[in-house]
Amino acid sequence: MERRGANQPRVGGYNQAVILDQIRRAGGLSRVELAAATGLSAQTVSNISQRLLDAGIIEEAGRTSGTAGGPGKPRTTLRLVGSSRHAVGVHLDPSVLTIVLLAIDGTVVASHRRPTPSANAPTRTMRLITREIEKLLDASGVERDSVVGVGIAAPGPIDAERGVIVDPPNLGGWHRVPLRDAVAEATGLPVVLDKDVTAAAVAERWVDAAAAAQSFAFLYMGTGLGMGLMLGDDVVRGGSGNAGEIGHIVTDPQGPVCSCGMRGCIAVSCTPASLVAEAEDLGILPATRVGSDPRTIDDAFTALVKLAGRGHVGALGVLERAAERIARALAVVCNLLDVDRVIIGGPAWSRLAPWFERQVPEVLSGLLVARGLHHVEIVGTSLGEDVGAIGAACLVLDEALTPRPTSLLVG
Amino acid sequence: MERRGANQPRVGGYNQAVILDQIRRAGGLSRVELAAATGLSAQTVSNISQRLLDAGIIEEAGRTSGTAGGPGKPRTTLRLVGSSRHAVGVHLDPSVLTIVLLAIDGTVVASHRRPTPSANAPTRTMRLITREIEKLLDASGVERDSVVGVGIAAPGPIDAERGVIVDPPNLGGWHRVPLRDAVAEATGLPVVLDKDVTAAAVAERWVDAAAAAQSFAFLYMGTGLGMGLMLGDDVVRGGSGNAGEIGHIVTDPQGPVCSCGMRGCIAVSCTPASLVAEAEDLGILPATRVGSDPRTIDDAFTALVKLAGRGHVGALGVLERAAERIARALAVVCNLLDVDRVIIGGPAWSRLAPWFERQVPEVLSGLLVARGLHHVEIVGTSLGEDVGAIGAACLVLDEALTPRPTSLLVG
Repeated sequence: MERRGANQPRVGGYNQAVILDQIRRAGGLSRVELAAATGLSAQTVSNISQRLLDAGIIEEAGRTSGTAGGPGKPRTTLRLVGSSRHAVGVHLDPSVLTIVLLAIDGTVVASHRRPTPSANAPTRTMRLITREIEKLLDASGVERDSVVGVGIAAPGPIDAERGVIVDPPNLGGWHRVPLRDAVAEATGLPVVLDKDVTAAAVAERWVDAAAAAQSFAFLYMGTGLGMGLMLGDDVVRGGSGNAGEIGHIVTDPQGPVCSCGMRGCIAVSCTPASLVAEAEDLGILPATRVGSDPRTIDDAFTALVKLAGRGHVGALGVLERAAERIARALAVVCNLLDVDRVIIGGPAWSRLAPWFERQVPEVLSGLLVARGLHHVEIVGTSLGEDVGAIGAACLVLDEALTPRPTSLLVG
Repeated sequence: MERRGANQPRVGGYNQAVILDQIRRAGGLSRVELAAATGLSAQTVSNISQRLLDAGIIEEAGRTSGTAGGPGKPRTTLRLVGSSRHAVGVHLDPSVLTIVLLAIDGTVVASHRRPTPSANAPTRTMRLITREIEKLLDASGVERDSVVGVGIAAPGPIDAERGVIVDPPNLGGWHRVPLRDAVAEATGLPVVLDKDVTAAAVAERWVDAAAAAQSFAFLYMGTGLGMGLMLGDDVVRGGSGNAGEIGHIVTDPQGPVCSCGMRGCIAVSCTPASLVAEAEDLGILPATRVGSDPRTIDDAFTALVKLAGRGHVGALGVLERAAERIARALAVVCNLLDVDRVIIGGPAWSRLAPWFERQVPEVLSGLLVARGLHHVEIVGTSLGEDVGAIGAACLVLDEALTPRPTSLLVG
């Protein structure tokens, strides 16, 4: 967290985060249940609860006669006050900028989408991000004081420690842009910067109890492809915060040449730009496209998907081959990590899902070394195209809510 | 652990494991230091220490005047008694069977290597394993009562829950062989079965303080190729215990056809058998080899490496191309997981190291997405060809020593 100094372990803050995390996940718990779930003493639970009640972060929500109507004296359920704290989430995709306002209970209070200014304009983009954050906050009517911070999800590579966007292949003009500090400066709010795929994986864990219990890989399909990983209960960030780069997995040895020296990396054979180029080469889309900026590509990609939807055999072929390549890339990851689940999302996914949803699991299951021993479930995200932005906001709330020795909530 | 019933959490056992782990890692600690390091009360530390002293697992090793000669009253250092407990480690590689006896402080008391009987003979191999365990125990002279169990490291896929070898591609005649229970039955010892690469990664964490502090990938190069992963402080086993399958990463689109339908997977272009076949095709090795069992291949592989050592240009070319492919496969893993370190080992590695040690890091570093942000260190294992067997023994001691809610040590 920028502007907060070193993260000093504070046992009080840690226990508080544990309690908040338990309340959030259960939807509400009594003090007795909290003590049982956390192993903290009744006195500690009582003290922390009182502090959170005084701060308005939790509230007492009526009495029950023990869990599931069992015996025992009546207990007061404690639950989060959704409107008490908020976080802003920003997802910077090369073609679209998404901003959400997330309440502490996980509710999306407001969300907003804008085309990203030309990839070569970091300064303009940073100004737009700041302006859109202010607009969203104003329009939502939430108390400024309730906003604990801003999370930004961006394409890698990033310099996580310095909060800097380094030189993402799909953001041509961005070289070592100090996005975190610029947004913090302009908004006066604490800002965290993380990779888009990391944010997306964190979002899935937040909203989905099933995802929280399992290891999963999140395949992000946007202008580029990336992967978020949740192994056990930990998101995999890697030594420099740049985990999740899967672009150079080769799945089509006859495919286009890639900058890495190989042919048919998924970065050059499975992105919207690659599928559009393939369709143009085959005469399926007109070869009259001017420019290759993300938005022009995006429009052509939409046209390709529409052709497939109308049963165009050539367009269907392009999508089928792409599904096979994606399945082969997922096989590399699933064989390496033996995850329980693959979640797919991102702006390209929502258009590809109708074709990929059947074919990808079929091809993948035949390629798993542990097939017969371990089923890998493949699902689309339930969070739609906001998943990256929601995840960015979760990063901020995560700092506050999950069991880590820091807290933004109560000073 | 077979024969132990369900793993019920027992707080006493857990705290004891925490204390033993701290003592082992530090080489020795006082009760005051233990309380500080673990957060346990002085009374708890004192009680557990007494129990471990009574059981002969730790001993008092003289007095010091506080840490680093600082002030304070003299403290008694507690340290492990290496000879008090042992574990047997078995590594079943398709071409070589390695058995070690490991003391609780990590010392290799005895080790022993035998050619694996023909891959198609699971029953004979199981008998050999049992016999070799007994021989090693007899020859070592350690008390039978001090042996807490046997760990077996085997090629995957495995059915981890049932302790069964499923159908490893390089162990042709093995189909659902209940190796764990068979060895437990024959030796009367508790047995754990895990994948070879998982065991190797666990071994590295045990012996190497630097490895313990970092995320790393362990590339195992034997009859087949596999990868062990240690992310944070956790070994990655995956949902079915089958993580680490990297054979189908494509790095040579013009390479041989693989059973998965692709060309140039590393399983068919970087194993000893593939390099031997390539050398035979190019006339570098005589095409007169009879049979393709692991030992025949191993001899031909040794001949190839010797040719390279004598400066044979063709042989050198085969190894150089293999190094490039291995580097490309490592790039896939390093870009996905952003690990700090890659450790390479296994029977093929010890012969390839002279050529790979320079070239692999060079090629890899050019392929990392986070290059410039994060250096990936590449080192050969310090444990030599015993790494898998040592790891298998560590799995047993790990159960006993590391902070998990089970313990084999004190009933």
